[in-house]
Parts: sequence; structure tokens; C-alpha cells
Amino acid sequence: MNYLVLKITGRAFNADPHLLRRYVNVVKSLLDARKLVVVTGGGAYARKYIEVARDVGVESNYWLDLIGILASRLNSLLLISALSNHAYPHPPESIEEAVKAVGCYKLVVMGGLIPGQSTASVLLQVAEALGVKKVYYYSAVGRVYDRDPARYPGARPLSVITASELKSILEQRTLPGEYALIDANALEISVRSGIEIQLLDYREPEQIYNALEGENPGTIVIPR
Amino acid sequence: MNYLVLKITGRAFNADPHLLRRYVNVVKSLLDARKLVVVTGGGAYARKYIEVARDVGVESNYWLDLIGILASRLNSLLLISALSNHAYPHPPESIEEAVKAVGCYKLVVMGGLIPGQSTASVLLQVAEALGVKKVYYYSAVGRVYDRDPARYPGARPLSVITASELKSILEQRTLPGEYALIDANALEISVRSGIEIQLLDYREPEQIYNALEGENPGTIVIPR
Amino acid sequence: MNYLVLKITGRAFNADPHLLRRYVNVVKSLLDARKLVVVTGGGAYARKYIEVARDVGVESNYWLDLIGILASRLNSLLLISALSNHAYPHPPESIEEAVKAVGCYKLVVMGGLIPGQSTASVLLQVAEALGVKKVYYYSAVGRVYDRDPARYPGARPLSVITASELKSILEQRTLPGEYALIDANALEISVRSGIEIQLLDYREPEQIYNALEGENPGTIVIPR
Amino acid sequence: MNYLVLKITGRAFNADPHLLRRYVNVVKSLLDARKLVVVTGGGAYARKYIEVARDVGVESNYWLDLIGILASRLNSLLLISALSNHAYPHPPESIEEAVKAVGCYKLVVMGGLIPGQSTASVLLQVAEALGVKKVYYYSAVGRVYDRDPARYPGARPLSVITASELKSILEQRTLPGEYALIDANALEISVRSGIEIQLLDYREPEQIYNALEGENPGTIVIPR
Amino acid sequence: MNYLVLKITGRAFNADPHLLRRYVNVVKSLLDARKLVVVTGGGAYARKYIEVARDVGVESNYWLDLIGILASRLNSLLLISALSNHAYPHPPESIEEAVKAVGCYKLVVMGGLIPGQSTASVLLQVAEALGVKKVYYYSAVGRVYDRDPARYPGARPLSVITASELKSILEQRTLPGEYALIDANALEISVRSGIEIQLLDYREPEQIYNALEGENPGTIVIPR
Amino acid sequence: MNYLVLKITGRAFNADPHLLRRYVNVVKSLLDARKLVVVTGGGAYARKYIEVARDVGVESNYWLDLIGILASRLNSLLLISALSNHAYPHPPESIEEAVKAVGCYKLVVMGGLIPGQSTASVLLQVAEALGVKKVYYYSAVGRVYDRDPARYPGARPLSVITASELKSILEQRTLPGEYALIDANALEISVRSGIEIQLLDYREPEQIYNALEGENPGTIVIPR
Repeated sequence: MNYLVLKITGRAFNADPHLLRRYVNVVKSLLDARKLVVVTGGGAYARKYIEVARDVGVESNYWLDLIGILASRLNSLLLISALSNHAYPHPPESIEEAVKAVGCYKLVVMGGLIPGQSTASVLLQVAEALGVKKVYYYSAVGRVYDRDPARYPGARPLSVITASELKSILEQRTLPGEYALIDANALEISVRSGIEIQLLDYREPEQIYNALEGENPGTIVIPR
Repeated sequence: MNYLVLKITGRAFNADPHLLRRYVNVVKSLLDARKLVVVTGGGAYARKYIEVARDVGVESNYWLDLIGILASRLNSLLLISALSNHAYPHPPESIEEAVKAVGCYKLVVMGGLIPGQSTASVLLQVAEALGVKKVYYYSAVGRVYDRDPARYPGARPLSVITASELKSILEQRTLPGEYALIDANALEISVRSGIEIQLLDYREPEQIYNALEGENPGTIVIPR
Repeated sequence: MNYLVLKITGRAFNADPHLLRRYVNVVKSLLDARKLVVVTGGGAYARKYIEVARDVGVESNYWLDLIGILASRLNSLLLISALSNHAYPHPPESIEEAVKAVGCYKLVVMGGLIPGQSTASVLLQVAEALGVKKVYYYSAVGRVYDRDPARYPGARPLSVITASELKSILEQRTLPGEYALIDANALEISVRSGIEIQLLDYREPEQIYNALEGENPGTIVIPR
Repeated sequence: MNYLVLKITGRAFNADPHLLRRYVNVVKSLLDARKLVVVTGGGAYARKYIEVARDVGVESNYWLDLIGILASRLNSLLLISALSNHAYPHPPESIEEAVKAVGCYKLVVMGGLIPGQSTASVLLQVAEALGVKKVYYYSAVGRVYDRDPARYPGARPLSVITASELKSILEQRTLPGEYALIDANALEISVRSGIEIQLLDYREPEQIYNALEGENPGTIVIPR
Repeated sequence: MNYLVLKITGRAFNADPHLLRRYVNVVKSLLDARKLVVVTGGGAYARKYIEVARDVGVESNYWLDLIGILASRLNSLLLISALSNHAYPHPPESIEEAVKAVGCYKLVVMGGLIPGQSTASVLLQVAEALGVKKVYYYSAVGRVYDRDPARYPGARPLSVITASELKSILEQRTLPGEYALIDANALEISVRSGIEIQLLDYREPEQIYNALEGENPGTIVIPR
Repeated sequence: MNYLVLKITGRAFNADPHLLRRYVNVVKSLLDARKLVVVTGGGAYARKYIEVARDVGVESNYWLDLIGILASRLNSLLLISALSNHAYPHPPESIEEAVKAVGCYKLVVMGGLIPGQSTASVLLQVAEALGVKKVYYYSAVGRVYDRDPARYPGARPLSVITASELKSILEQRTLPGEYALIDANALEISVRSGIEIQLLDYREPEQIYNALEGENPGTIVIPR
């Protein structure tokens, strides 16, 4: 049985419930033909909790990250509870637990794993562990642009970009709750194990059907 | 070394950060002379997440409760991160783990444990396991009234009430995220093991100093 | 695949081995068409060990209950060993472990879980977690009577009773080893999640065949 | 801090509670000056349960042994509950867990570990792991005789015997619940790591005080 | 589904990679028709590491054995990584974990378990736990001889030997890294549970095909 | 009590035992005044095993890395066994386990944690988790040079370098067993949490005494 490995940005969990229902339906329909591992991001509550922690004097990035990780698992649990007939009943806390779980269950949903590592890295690590060569990543924008679209109205979306180009474009941020679209560590795993990343727009869960039929609805990151 | 076992309602974690800082300071100062086990409730985020789960079609109380439990652990982690020099580094997931942890660490912070059980029950179970005969419970009101104060302006606070009287007053609710002030199961443990419950007002963390000196700033529930 | 969730009173394990063999055969035959979770009570050895503990000075209900729980797991292990080709090889120690186990194994056998909670509560919790709406409970009497049959010779068995009626009839006992037929906490889970309880006579393991065909060989507790 | 490692035969747990109280007192008093690891045997209930399992058709020595192991842990829990202020709160399930526990707690109580291995072997393994060179073993007789005292009235107790002499005397039995006084595997560990075994009479818990003062109230097995 | 339980001596992992590739192929082809549990020995690296530990002053057999056990797990991981599509993803650390794993996975690979116990004992324990009556053991020689072939040129290989004869022939060694072909404990499990041991030459992985067709390419140890 | 966090390159474990004995002595003497966490690299055996795995056809970086991680834990165990009176008795498998362990034990020794992450990253993560602002790293060279000393005879050692300068000098390699001196991920943690890295020459374990007195025997990496 083949595997589908994807990530859903935390943002999808704090938007309207209708969007989340669409994700639930998409995941359910994908389960018919394959096993799924879904990685969930942290989102607004993660950031909110991290902010409160800072307010009460927590300065350690380790602890702030742990809070973000637990919040991302709350998003995992939300998805698990909606698909509990098919899912491994709790978010794995290591890649090894995920690998074990996927041997017995059709659906595994997990959040962050360790401080200092983004959930995008988790996505790539799971793919590497399972020998999967393409992952799907629902992100805030769904595309990479040639310039920052927030500042340049004429910025144009790219359909393909290499991992090393993307690495030089992205401003690296590694603060808790503030991980960039994708971090250097994730891109390195992508390159070393030849894993292609299909970016998708988190507002359009159904885009994955097109992507599975060979279309490219967002940007593809080539592992080079 | 003696133990102090207390619960902080989830509400305290969603109010202004200043209140939370006061809790951090109170817990820190109490650690000088004793070991502490702190149980944290779920609060607004627990209810919010449970609501979202319902919106995407989750009907099972088991799963809704699990979401509430994970949210209560997020509150635990917040407190742990602010007191990480003294604390067992994650919320125990069973009474047994809590008992083990308190043998080695000065501070243990934990949330809910199992579906169908309130965090008030966790408070009483920890006390029973450690042989503690009095617990402190920061709740939304801090007192029990002779009538519902929301409806009867002349309702008067009681300084003492028996567990069985309280049981007959309380409307029992056992829905996820909607556990009453204290549930029957918690009161039964209180009675069977003779554990007194000192209610305190969650807006006044420092009340516990008075309570430890023998005053009664809220209502005391007698285990009878 | 559908689930069958049932409880066998501890008494069945301390009677003649012939009775236990009948249980083994019944469970084996039921496995042909479905997955089973079996909860085993503590029984005579649980009470015996609790009594010895009291004799050496143990007063804590927490520890006395833990002893009862371990004894109930000894009964689980007995059943597991007799059905080891089909069974998850040890008694789960939490509802979550049971849910995980039942995803991979045809038969899961478990005893008590936490102090202050009866094995009848475990029965209802497992059912709630698996979304099962009817459970089978082999108990000492198998029926509820309109009056205490030990004192009133004319007491008549009831074929149906609501959970709330049953709650008001039962004298609540929550001492280690002395849990009543069914406790308030179990009945609350039954009501909140709409789970019907079919009582069966523990001396007649084969009654379940009739019950599965729609008959009512004992008393049915309606979740209201 | 130095360690004292001892085993109490299962028989001590099924005798009169007064004897068990004496053990509790002895263990408590020994804790003043050192850390203790106590291994508990299975005894009558272990054999009773194994017999029931055989009656319902269990033939596998693996499963029969597992039942004996769980029963021996019930004896451990009894002792833990009576000394819960000092004890690691549950019986370790591996030597490694015991080694970890003894780093943090004054008292560790454990039963059998794996099928095919006697609790006498556990005693020697713990000692080897902790670097302890003498262990105390409360057994049914407390002494080794030059001939079988049950058959030869003139049999004389030996105050000292080597491990290899003892090995050739003992009829080796390795059936579940029927392990001999001490088995070959235990004696091999004794020899390879130079651990002396002081046999004591289980009816006289206080003999250990004499043994600790250099007397030999039973038989000493020399690791040769 | 039936089980095949076999052991590969550590020596096979330190020889040329070509031999190891043959083992990988043999294991892969055997998986078509059955589930496999493979026990891996420690071999040269185990002995090397134990030697280094002795050089830095480690005298405890417990710790030296633990090092040997971890080295044997490194051999397990090598085999798991080459067969990761079929294998439980890490070496079980107890018989119970192995029994659980084999319920969900086609292939389980494991090394040593506890100090003082050879991997040959692990082989027999797994077989006993799974109810398997014949095991396959790739060892350094593959046969038992009537005399030590290293010293007597005329020594003749035996096709059959009883466990008790073998026991008296073998010089018992129980030092870390120096366990003999098979130890007394393994032979006792063989006898008590009636498990036949087919010895095979580790240089000829394909011998097992012949053995499975009823031939005897090495020596068979009869459980008597 | 303050913490000292250091890493010893795997190379130190494959050199002459005399060097390893010096490390054992250094670690022992450091324990007098503080708690230690020691991270051990993989070294020659890790690379050897990874090579064998490649030879039998393993291509997945995930599995190759896991082999390297287990080999690094073998080095940890070597150190633990030589210091078993003070050490947590096995290598933690997550940062959280390390944090927990250090609350109870004076010495914690650990190897790699997850695929795709160097043991240098583990060093920085442990420091971040414990709030330590300076770490010690015994590496192959002990110093950073302004040019590759292997190619340029006139290359000069630097006493201080910033993390960002070092990042641009180092050729990034992330293949199993081939991690560079320090990787980008480790340097990012260093920068985000302000942790200084003192490089030391692995051939001179005693250099740390000088470093602790404020000298700089190698190169210091400034977290900027």
C-alpha cells in the first residue's frame, strides 16, 4: 500500500469550521486508496500561548517551542477525533512512533516533535522515513513568488523552484511560533533524499485531487 | 517533606497575564517549604476547541473530552515553563506518574487525565494517593452560596458546607468542557478518604497564604 | 468490523474452572464475527489481598484500590493466556491503550484502570471511546429487582429500568473491593453517551447468544 | 549510600498477617541506614492461578509463567502499599527500571521479570547490576541440609556450601510456579560475579539483624 | 499464519557483506509464506566494545553484558533497515514487545534482552512464547561433534543429539561476549516446552530451505 | 546546582583506551562540583556499520542515520558503564528524557536523537533546554582555521569566530555518518539562544580544566 504524506498549516485550524470540514472530507476520501500521514502546524493558538508564556517571563526558546508543539498536537487531535474510525488514536511523539503506527493504521496525524525544528521539517522527515519521494504542503500562500508579494504588487508566482533557490530567497526565522514557510533543515532533507515538495493553497483543500492527477496547482520545490 | 495539592481553574489562564504572573509568584514562594502538585483546568481554549470539534461533526464525548484534556495540559505546560527550574518537565498522564514524579521533583503540574472525569476529580485523586487531607481549589467563584447568586441578589455565601449538602445543591453536568464546580465523583473521593476542600477565589492567588495560616477566605467543603 | 464490549464479574474467576472454560468457549466463538473488548472484575482474591493489606496497616483507599486493580488484571491475564492466539498480549492500563490495541488485535482483555473507579465504569468508558451503544455485563445476579431479593422473598425481577431509577435504588459504596453492581459514574457515562447496559447472569455465559439475537435474558438499563 | 538486596519467598505473603507485619517493620527499620531492593516470590496464589489456567486448557509455560510473575507483583504491591512513604510506587518490570528507580527512591520492591526465570535469579541479577556482593534470601527452610530432611530424619543443616555443591544437590525444576529453592541460572550469576547468598528462615524476619552483624543464622552459599 | 523463529550468529554480520546480502534475500523470500522472528547475536563488535570497556576499568558483568546487548541490537537494526518494508521498525527490548509486534508485522528482528542471558536463550524464549516447536539456529559451526574438532582431527559430526547430552558436552561459559554455542538456560526452555533446535552453518544461509523441506543439513537438538 | 554540557567526538572512542580512561577521569572529577550532560558522537564504528548497510542495499538516509545513532549510543553506554555509580543508567532517547534524568542524576550521557540531525545539534539543544549559555565540544581538530589546514600549510587557527562566519566557511554535509564539524541547525540554536561554543582538541581531555578557568585552549564560537 502506498503512502501519502502531507502537511496542513496551523492557519487552517483557526479559520472557519467549514474549511476544516472540507479537510476532513478530503482526508477521508484519500484514505480509500492509500495510507496517510498528516502533519498539522500550530497556528494562532500556538502563537497566542507562546505570547502568554513570554508575558509571564518565559525566555527559553526550548520551553516556548514545547508550548507550540503541544498546541500543534491539539490541532492533530481535532483531526483525529473527526476521523477516529481510521486514525491512530493519538499524535505520535517521534518519527519512530509514526513509522510504527503507519504499519497498523490507515491514518496517522501528528504535530511538532522537538524544539528548534519546524513542522515542515517533520513533514520531510516522515517522508524520508517512509521512502516517499513527493510531499504535499498546504501553506498560507500556496505559491512561492519571485518577489515578496506583500511589498511588490507585480510579484509573480513561480510554478517551479529548486530547494537551493528557495533557501536563498527565504529569510530564515527560527523563533518559536515564527518558523518561516520552510526552513533550511527541511530543505536539506528534501535535497539529500530527493523529495519533491508540492505547495498548495491552504484555502483550497481539494487542490490535492488535481495535484494527484499530475497537475501543479501551486509551486513545486525541486530537491536540488 | 509535606505536600500541598491545589487546583487552578482554567479561567485563570485566559485572563490577563498579570494574574498568571501572580500565580507564578505564589507557587514559587510556596515551594520554599514544601512540595506542590498543581492541577490546571481547561478554560476558554478547551471549550473553544471542543466547539470546533463539534462543528466538524465530532459527537463522541470521549473524543471531545480528550481535546479538553489536552487543552488543560497546555495550561500545565505554561506553568511548568515559567517554573522550569523546579518542575517535573511535563504534565503527568496518570496519577501513578504524578506520584512517581513527586518523589523526585519539588513541583508537579498536571491537567485532566481521562474522559468522563473532571479536573476537580484529579485534584482529589492526587490528594488521596499522597495521603493529603486538605486541598486548595481556586475556582470561578471561590465560594458556595445558599442560592444561585446569579438569580437571587440576596444569596449569601457559606463559609462551610458538607460534601453531601453540596452534592444535592449542584446541578450535575458531565458534558465535555462543561463540568460543574465539582462533580459527584470528586466529592465521593473527598468523603471516602476524609479530604477537606478549601475553595478560593481564582482572582486572588494570594488568598492561599491566609488559608495556610488557618483562615477561611472562601468556603470549606467538609468531607461528610 | 463491529465491536462487542462486555464485562465479566470477578466472581466468575473464583468459581469452578468449568464455568471459566465456558466463558473461554463463548469468547472464542464470538470472535468469529467481531472484535471483543472484555473487562474483568476483581473478585475474591482482590478482596482477600485488600484485607491482608488492611491487616498490615494500609489505610489509604488509593493503595487498596491499586491492589484490587492488579488482582483484576490477574483475571484478565488468565483469559488472555487461554485465548493467546487472538488476544492483545497484556491487559491495557488505560482506555487509550485499549483503543490502540483494538485497532490491531481481535481481542482485548483488561481489568481496572484507576483508583476510585469501578470496573463497571471501565466497561462504559471503553464503549464510549469505541462508539458502541450497547454493552453486556455479566454480574452476580444478572437482574435488578424491585426490592432487595435477599430481604424480600416476593421481590420481582425487572426486565427494564432507567439509569436514573437504578441510581436512586442502589446504595452507593465506593470502598476498595466493595464497589456496588454499578456506580453513579458508570451510569452517568451511560446516560451522557446513550449506552444501553444488558445485565446477564454470570453463571450463564451462553446467555449472550440470546441477547445478541434480540432477547433480554436479564435486565436492560436504559440510558435515561 | 549502600544497598541491601534481599528476597522474601512468596510463602511469607500467604501466612498469617502478623508475619507480614513483622516484615514491614524489619524493612522500615533497615531503611534508616541504607537503600533496599526487595524481591518478592509468588507463593500460594501464584500456584493457585497457574492451576486454574491449566484447568482451562493453558499449556504454554510462557503464559503460565507470566501469570506467576503477575501474582508475585501483587505481593510486591502489598509491601509497597504498606511502605508507600519510602517506596518507588510500583514493581519495576526490568532490571534496568529497578536500577533507575533505586537512584531516586529508598525502597524498590519487585517480583518476577521474565518467563523461564525464577525470582531467585532476579535477586542475583539486581545484586550484579548494583555491584552488591552479598544478598539475603528468606526461603521456605532457611538452610541447606546434607540430605533431604523430609525423608531423612538425621539430615543435618549446613552452615556453608559452595554454589557448585548446591547445584549438584538440587533437583532442577523449571516448571511455572515450581521453581526450586534456587536455580542453576541464579547460581551461575552468583559465581560469575562473586555474590554470596545468605539463606534465612522466612518465619524469622528479624534474623537479618543478626546476619548484618556478621552472624550466620542459616546457610551461606559461597560463590564458587 | 505460522511463525518461523531463527537466530543468526553475530559472526554473520562481521563477515563479508556478500554473506549478509544472502541472509537478506533468504529472509525476504521466507516472508512470502509466514511471519518471521529473527534473533541476532553480538559478534566481533560486541566483543571489541566489551574489551574496550574492560580496558577503561569496567568490571561489572552486568554492564559488560549490556554493552554486548546493545551491539547485538545494532546487528538487528542492520537487518531491519535492509528489510524495512516488512519489519517492525526497531528491535524489541522484551519478549512481550516481540509478541505484540509479531501480531502486527511480518518480520521482527531482535538482539539480546537481559544481562546474564545468551541470545540463544532469547531464541528459545520467543519460540516458547509463540508456541513454536522448532527453531533454526545459524551458528559458527552448524554441527555438534562427538569430540572437539579443533583438537581431534577424527571428530565426527552428529546429526542428532539430545539436549541433555549436549548440556554435558558443552563447557559452560557465561562471561559477557563469551556465551557458548548454547547455554543451560536455553536448553532447559527447549526441554520444558519441547522445542527442537535445528543447527545450521552460518556460512550457508540457504540451508534453511533444505531444512524446511525436511532435510537435516546440520545437527538437530532433541528436547529431551 | 549548575550544569556542564559537553560533547565528545566519536573519534575519542575508537582511539587507544588510554585516551578514553583520561576522559573517564576528567568526567569523574568534574562531577564533584556540578551536574554533567555528555553527548557522544558516533565515530568509526558508526561509519563502518553505515557502510555495511549500504553494501547490503540500504539507500534510505533515515535508516542509515538510525544506525549511526545506535552506534553513538554504544559509545554513551561505554562511558555510562565506566561511571555507573553516578550516571543515569541508559542514554536518553529525547531531549525531554535528558531533562527529566538530569533532575535526579549527576551524570547523563547520550548519543544522537533523530535522523537528519547531528550530535552537535543535540549538544546545543540540551544546552538550550537547560538554560546553559556555554558548551564544550571536543572535536577532531579543536580549532577553526582561516583556511583548510589540510591544503594550506600556512593556515592559521582562530581563537574566536562568529557562528555566521563559521556557517559560511563550513561546507555543509548532511549525509549519515558524514556530518561536518558543526551543522547549520546547531549554529542556529546557538544564535537564537545565545549559547557560546568552546571547541577543544579531543586528544586533550584535560583542556577543559583550563577552559573552566577562563582560558581559551581552542576556538570559541560566538553566538552571533
